Amino acid sequence: MRQGFKVKKITIAVDAMGGDNAPRAICGGAVQACQAFPGIEIILTGDEEQLRPLLEPVPAEVRSRLRIVHAGEVIGMDEHPVEAIRKKHHSSMRLAMEMVRSGEAQGFISAGNTGAIVAGGVLIVGRLSGIDRPALGSMLFTIERPSFMLDMGATVRCKPENLYQFALMGSVYSRKILKVANPEVTLLSNGTEEIKGDECVAGARELLMKSALNFKGYTEGNDIVWGRSDVIVCDGFTGNVALKLGEGIMQGLKSLLTDEVKKSLLARAGMAFLAPTVKSLWARFNYEKYGGAPLLGVKGAVLKAHGRSKEPAILSAISAARRFIEEDGVGLIQAELDTSPSHREQGI
Amino acid sequence: MRQGFKVKKITIAVDAMGGDNAPRAICGGAVQACQAFPGIEIILTGDEEQLRPLLEPVPAEVRSRLRIVHAGEVIGMDEHPVEAIRKKHHSSMRLAMEMVRSGEAQGFISAGNTGAIVAGGVLIVGRLSGIDRPALGSMLFTIERPSFMLDMGATVRCKPENLYQFALMGSVYSRKILKVANPEVTLLSNGTEEIKGDECVAGARELLMKSALNFKGYTEGNDIVWGRSDVIVCDGFTGNVALKLGEGIMQGLKSLLTDEVKKSLLARAGMAFLAPTVKSLWARFNYEKYGGAPLLGVKGAVLKAHGRSKEPAILSAISAARRFIEEDGVGLIQAELDTSPSHREQGI
Repeated sequence: MRQGFKVKKITIAVDAMGGDNAPRAICGGAVQACQAFPGIEIILTGDEEQLRPLLEPVPAEVRSRLRIVHAGEVIGMDEHPVEAIRKKHHSSMRLAMEMVRSGEAQGFISAGNTGAIVAGGVLIVGRLSGIDRPALGSMLFTIERPSFMLDMGATVRCKPENLYQFALMGSVYSRKILKVANPEVTLLSNGTEEIKGDECVAGARELLMKSALNFKGYTEGNDIVWGRSDVIVCDGFTGNVALKLGEGIMQGLKSLLTDEVKKSLLARAGMAFLAPTVKSLWARFNYEKYGGAPLLGVKGAVLKAHGRSKEPAILSAISAARRFIEEDGVGLIQAELDTSPSHREQGI
Repeated sequence: MRQGFKVKKITIAVDAMGGDNAPRAICGGAVQACQAFPGIEIILTGDEEQLRPLLEPVPAEVRSRLRIVHAGEVIGMDEHPVEAIRKKHHSSMRLAMEMVRSGEAQGFISAGNTGAIVAGGVLIVGRLSGIDRPALGSMLFTIERPSFMLDMGATVRCKPENLYQFALMGSVYSRKILKVANPEVTLLSNGTEEIKGDECVAGARELLMKSALNFKGYTEGNDIVWGRSDVIVCDGFTGNVALKLGEGIMQGLKSLLTDEVKKSLLARAGMAFLAPTVKSLWARFNYEKYGGAPLLGVKGAVLKAHGRSKEPAILSAISAARRFIEEDGVGLIQAELDTSPSHREQGI
């Protein structure tokens, strides 16, 4: 039934006030997205007085597909997510999410408070039927093949059923959006042997062994780097630590290398020769290409862009949301949930 | 009372059969340690027929401080840790640990099955009074200052009290063995804000806030790299994933860089100039300098050496065990446990 399903008009609500470079970079990325994709419309929620001047130089055809909806409040990076979403009815984030709930938009993007995006995903946009908790996914540019890892921080501690649902959603995302045939799914654990894992991971392993997914058992920390499976499943606590550690190591190495190179003329000469190599290496890990992290398990294409996002990262996130909507990612996940035997039916 | 306490004769039991390069590298490292430290004696447990020839070329004075104790069994890397320790009475690992229990040796080192070392630490060597679960610590060569992180995989899932005990032990280790004045202790979490963390981490935070430790709150994945605290506390699942991810990223980068450099003459020229810089950078992350991971919370200096350890790593682990014994690490941790109000007394 879902085969060939396409949304004709795509509208994406963008929180123009979220992230370190808001609103300028958010508006800039939205303009670029409207230029790149003639079929889309973008609603920017935020302080009208700040947003209007940013759109003034934009050509009329593009401008006609950009709409500003004034929001008098902003959810800060340090605010309590659930409280902020509940109380700030006029926040740029909540207003944008309400548009997804009402169907005015099919997608939502923010580079703001991650916890609030997750809370809003559950409280405003709403969960899919059969999903207890949502998961934030992220593309990892790994060595052997790109991997899709979830959860990166939406659901801090999980039950086995949560991890099972994440695996199911990740597998659909990998197959339908990333076009991986029969994606291999693994569970992140403290070793690959069967006896590893805590009760929760071991419970999820049991569920996944019985499922129709192409489950390949446990994977460990170093395997993440090599990309030894298409989908890696973990709880949001572990995923968040791993994601930030990875980012930290890359930044740390860059900083150390810069310092070392400054110290030596020889090293500076070497770096000049090596620049293209380092650049190409670095590009593999560039979060601007990540395209935003989809929040899976909610009734809309909700994507979290990196807090430090500049124009290209916002463009990339909007592009990912557009693809998710075009492919009917939400419908595909719901269909999979409806046809898969639930963990309860599996007798666990 | 413990002030100035020194063990006069130091005996370290070494599992000669554990690790990828056993027994040759283990014996080689033990010989080097006896040469480096005139005051120590080493007992090598393992297959006498294999070990004896390896010690033949050793000078008589050094040889006199090396003793072989025959062990007819070996615990494999893939064996179930608890079962292996329980059943293999004649394994090189168990025999060596029994020497620590009997007092014949004060320390024990193995590059073998980590789970079995932990199981043996609890079942054979025995826990300190006031410790529910042990923790494996590891030195991290981070940017601002070295950090000591625990648990790296001994206790897969923890209760708040376990994390509190790890913090206490880590703080003593940092202060007394690593000579850090008033070490700063942090808890690894999915963000630095108070509202982050799951129930367990939040519970540990409560305990640590009330304690006399120099507790600085939560730390996140990227902070590990920068070394923003002296002691980082986490459960063994998260610590294991983080440790392996860090190792994996470094190995992955090395492999990618090697491939890229092969492709380009310019890059090869650059690498030639850069070689000393890369070498010095690499050396910061060299596990051979880690000196082994101490298993804290047991009645002896039990250290786990890296599975891939060669001679220098074994020497380094023996050297760390020697320092731990000389400083009476076990006694200091027990004294701290005895004088600190327990979590129960703290009313949590």
